[in-house]
Amino acid sequence: MTTNKSKEDSEKDLKSLRKIRNTTSRATVKKLENIIYKKFKVLDHGFVRLIDYMGDDSSIVQAARVSYGKGTKKINEDKSLINYLLSHRHSTPFEMNEIKLHVKLPIFVARQWIRHRTANVNEYSARYSILEKEFYIPELKHMQTQSSVNNQGRGEKIDKENALEKRHIIKKHSESSFEKYSYLLNENLVGETLDLNNIGLARELARMTLPLNAYTQWYWKIDLHNLMHFLSLRFDQHAQYEIRVYADVILEIMKKWVPFTYEAFLKFRLDGFSLSSVGLEYLKSILKNKKFDTKRISKRELNEINSKFDL
Amino acid sequence: MTTNKSKEDSEKDLKSLRKIRNTTSRATVKKLENIIYKKFKVLDHGFVRLIDYMGDDSSIVQAARVSYGKGTKKINEDKSLINYLLSHRHSTPFEMNEIKLHVKLPIFVARQWIRHRTANVNEYSARYSILEKEFYIPELKHMQTQSSVNNQGRGEKIDKENALEKRHIIKKHSESSFEKYSYLLNENLVGETLDLNNIGLARELARMTLPLNAYTQWYWKIDLHNLMHFLSLRFDQHAQYEIRVYADVILEIMKKWVPFTYEAFLKFRLDGFSLSSVGLEYLKSILKNKKFDTKRISKRELNEINSKFDL
Amino acid sequence: MTTNKSKEDSEKDLKSLRKIRNTTSRATVKKLENIIYKKFKVLDHGFVRLIDYMGDDSSIVQAARVSYGKGTKKINEDKSLINYLLSHRHSTPFEMNEIKLHVKLPIFVARQWIRHRTANVNEYSARYSILEKEFYIPELKHMQTQSSVNNQGRGEKIDKENALEKRHIIKKHSESSFEKYSYLLNENLVGETLDLNNIGLARELARMTLPLNAYTQWYWKIDLHNLMHFLSLRFDQHAQYEIRVYADVILEIMKKWVPFTYEAFLKFRLDGFSLSSVGLEYLKSILKNKKFDTKRISKRELNEINSKFDL
Amino acid sequence: MTTNKSKEDSEKDLKSLRKIRNTTSRATVKKLENIIYKKFKVLDHGFVRLIDYMGDDSSIVQAARVSYGKGTKKINEDKSLINYLLSHRHSTPFEMNEIKLHVKLPIFVARQWIRHRTANVNEYSARYSILEKEFYIPELKHMQTQSSVNNQGRGEKIDKENALEKRHIIKKHSESSFEKYSYLLNENLVGETLDLNNIGLARELARMTLPLNAYTQWYWKIDLHNLMHFLSLRFDQHAQYEIRVYADVILEIMKKWVPFTYEAFLKFRLDGFSLSSVGLEYLKSILKNKKFDTKRISKRELNEINSKFDL
Repeated sequence: MTTNKSKEDSEKDLKSLRKIRNTTSRATVKKLENIIYKKFKVLDHGFVRLIDYMGDDSSIVQAARVSYGKGTKKINEDKSLINYLLSHRHSTPFEMNEIKLHVKLPIFVARQWIRHRTANVNEYSARYSILEKEFYIPELKHMQTQSSVNNQGRGEKIDKENALEKRHIIKKHSESSFEKYSYLLNENLVGETLDLNNIGLARELARMTLPLNAYTQWYWKIDLHNLMHFLSLRFDQHAQYEIRVYADVILEIMKKWVPFTYEAFLKFRLDGFSLSSVGLEYLKSILKNKKFDTKRISKRELNEINSKFDL
Repeated sequence: MTTNKSKEDSEKDLKSLRKIRNTTSRATVKKLENIIYKKFKVLDHGFVRLIDYMGDDSSIVQAARVSYGKGTKKINEDKSLINYLLSHRHSTPFEMNEIKLHVKLPIFVARQWIRHRTANVNEYSARYSILEKEFYIPELKHMQTQSSVNNQGRGEKIDKENALEKRHIIKKHSESSFEKYSYLLNENLVGETLDLNNIGLARELARMTLPLNAYTQWYWKIDLHNLMHFLSLRFDQHAQYEIRVYADVILEIMKKWVPFTYEAFLKFRLDGFSLSSVGLEYLKSILKNKKFDTKRISKRELNEINSKFDL
Repeated sequence: MTTNKSKEDSEKDLKSLRKIRNTTSRATVKKLENIIYKKFKVLDHGFVRLIDYMGDDSSIVQAARVSYGKGTKKINEDKSLINYLLSHRHSTPFEMNEIKLHVKLPIFVARQWIRHRTANVNEYSARYSILEKEFYIPELKHMQTQSSVNNQGRGEKIDKENALEKRHIIKKHSESSFEKYSYLLNENLVGETLDLNNIGLARELARMTLPLNAYTQWYWKIDLHNLMHFLSLRFDQHAQYEIRVYADVILEIMKKWVPFTYEAFLKFRLDGFSLSSVGLEYLKSILKNKKFDTKRISKRELNEINSKFDL
Repeated sequence: MTTNKSKEDSEKDLKSLRKIRNTTSRATVKKLENIIYKKFKVLDHGFVRLIDYMGDDSSIVQAARVSYGKGTKKINEDKSLINYLLSHRHSTPFEMNEIKLHVKLPIFVARQWIRHRTANVNEYSARYSILEKEFYIPELKHMQTQSSVNNQGRGEKIDKENALEKRHIIKKHSESSFEKYSYLLNENLVGETLDLNNIGLARELARMTLPLNAYTQWYWKIDLHNLMHFLSLRFDQHAQYEIRVYADVILEIMKKWVPFTYEAFLKFRLDGFSLSSVGLEYLKSILKNKKFDTKRISKRELNEINSKFDL
């Protein structure tokens, strides 16, 4: 039987990893060295853990200038160049930085996440190894109904009684799935007595019974440009809550890593606003106190603009 | 409630699609026109369906030559250029052809498949829509044990009694998962009476209870170079049976599409053989009747060579 | 010696290609069939020529819905779905369409163009073939000085006398480069008498003398999503004139190909406007008649906003 | 006028960069720290300079195992896992390592190099900056004729007299191109007296007169998997000499970086050998002393096999 190393072992390993002190001439970020290998908890059993990184804010500047040395430029000029690059969508200098994370996440979240094809991924293989008995069970406040306005989102909180009952169903179902998984494998993962006549099924088949809230894990590496793209989609209010919480943690890591880029990213992307040509005309009509036929603009954009500008 | 169109409707649609006769000056392949939109069944509920294609064998030749017209070159020269390009790993001319497929497949197969990042994918969204009650249940002959030699493969067939029992467990578990899914959504997908006090959970949450053998579907588009890479990995004996059967069907479609490239692909990839530097020396030692210390070669490569050359 | 087929031949080839009438059940766009294989002239010797395409507006909708058939949805719903997809940056459905072009362009333009890594390219090889005697010589009105405000752009027109002189230099230099190329190859590409003692240099070396305004050509294939990204960068006023004229022609082809997507692309991208968080506040301060410290906003954004909104 | 920093400055910068001693818990490779930022000369004016790297041999193993800690596995097991991964074409663990180089190279080499689309590149912009007066002039022994067997390669050395004459032409042409460049820009890059009536042309236009042997430079970042792909194509005897010398240097850097992977790469790729299905049969026929109709195999493969196996 193939097992994970025990948790105690791995925690010990982590500690010894974090004690390593190598000497390097590479760009190094102190705030990241302080959190390297540390687990940041997400959801009930998930985590994000920084494994490695390449580059800092000044590496972006260096790449943009294809410069020989570190340069004599001042910090202010670096900052303003980063602002310029980000606002003008010069993506290549940001591709020069990389970050590598170890992430534990529910399978249904992993299925959304993997759609970002520009990252490198090594996932824990359920053909090769046995998954652990860990399932995502939502907190009560996250037990919500289907949204009535957004076909792919959720709406109101469900009343407590219903939420408790439904969560109980999810929990029981997760446990029962794992019992079946254990039985099909002919392992005693849940403490059962082994049946001598039971012939175990291959791992690649037995895993079929596991539900989408089972946890998986992977090493995930991405460059800074594509990380920002990932974050701008997954930090968004339209993203599912269960992936957004991962984006939250990663955004905080990014803030420690490349503070100037982080600031520019908030300014020009996360907190910026895009107008369509019609939205532009609508706003102009208000500024100029002219009439505007609101049939020309989509309801959604109209609402967005009105709410953004308190109109 | 968001539902799929009924199956009868979709079959009608398919028929009317297949009756369309457009006129085009683009490269057109008769053998593909004969099967376009047709469903090729895979596993118990899956399928592969050709939606569109771009280019044929001669488009590859044209791109390699960056030629103006169709050229006066003979078929033989085209064939030999394709052989040359493929055996010398000139990948770009093959990237000039594209194929678009509609595929229905179990989620655990989809999770392997999606690792090929060079394709374009639109997957049926379980945040937006409700999945159908369809689960992959292996045939008896595919109920196999874990391989004793390959840590990520399967070995012997399980005896009939055990296989029947385990398959029954998988089947019952699939049904019970779907019942929970239906209840959590507060839909009557399985004919139950709706509970008036039941408040449905959002689709993006309810789907968590579905097992990995539930079916999903997607549109998948890939260029010919990357298709061959996909096929060489997934047609392989080390690939899991449940994805290999899809590769089988797609390989047959490729054969109709680009017969010269297909032939070259068999010759230089699928039926070719790669030797390491040590394997080369080993084979040379046999040809020259010289001694060779087999400790220098890995057991696996030794076995592979001996079996390939009947040594 | 390896030569290009004569131009007369290729024109004949093109005509016969355009006369081909194949029957297909694939999505077909009449307006593209009308221009397929036709050369659209760009600059003095360049062109863009449509070779193939995959999909139309309705294919995007089909992929987004992962639909079985053509569907019963109305054109209006298709249009509004395309607007929704584009404005919400759902990129995958647009990746389901492909276009293949044959482009002839100066090498310095090719070097900018190739930076879009998401396309497939087969370029005419100067290791394998001899380049033609064609060089880009700018029109007088495009002979401009370095911009005084933009470090990577051009400014005023140069006075006629200077422009004529400089253009003459470029022209003579191009011709003299080609003569050297011909001599190094020991070919008589420019009508010279061959020197019997001259031993030709390999093509891969002789090409070193060619200047960056020599023409090259390639087959270029890209999906619609990445095409729009290419166009939004290269249609832009900051792009060099000599690449922008290619973007112009390709945008016109796109308009014929996918009219709904084209319209949405203009509305949400080309003619839209992005505000930073500070730009947003500035605009809000004007709408609300409040004070705003313009030191907080970059000069560039301030000017852009003022000019967009006639402030 | 925008100039490069003087060379003296940049050498000083490099020295101070190399003196930096940061402390890190990241995977660190001593042999790379010893050469970081150092220039390795290539051709007459080119170089390769290591800027940064991510990961080492053990990071590959860690990623493949999605392991928590450094693991208790022994070096031998790491080595054998790397061999296994490489020979079975498991590419993703190798994608977890990155290397960033600063490269100076002739434009015609850059044009081949850039075709590897999986790397990240920031090139020195000739729209923004003025290029230096540096051109690749081949050594006498590299002045070769067109190959008589390979349409895209070179053959015999040219006799000394011819070689000297042709090299002189290339040199003079390079100088004269740069003089024109300087004049068009209205700069005195070559010590000329400035003409007061000369109005300079924009840099993006003036560069058109530069020949393909002018040097450019870029920052280039690539993951280890794609680096090996690049090396297997560019280290190859069919690659042009002028790019192969860069591959040589980079291969040496790779050897210091990931010695186990380097060894496996030689064994299974660079020094391995691929047989087609027909080549396999041919070799088998010799081993079994049976007849084989050599018309069935291509001349090229026949020769390759015979030479590899001394037949």
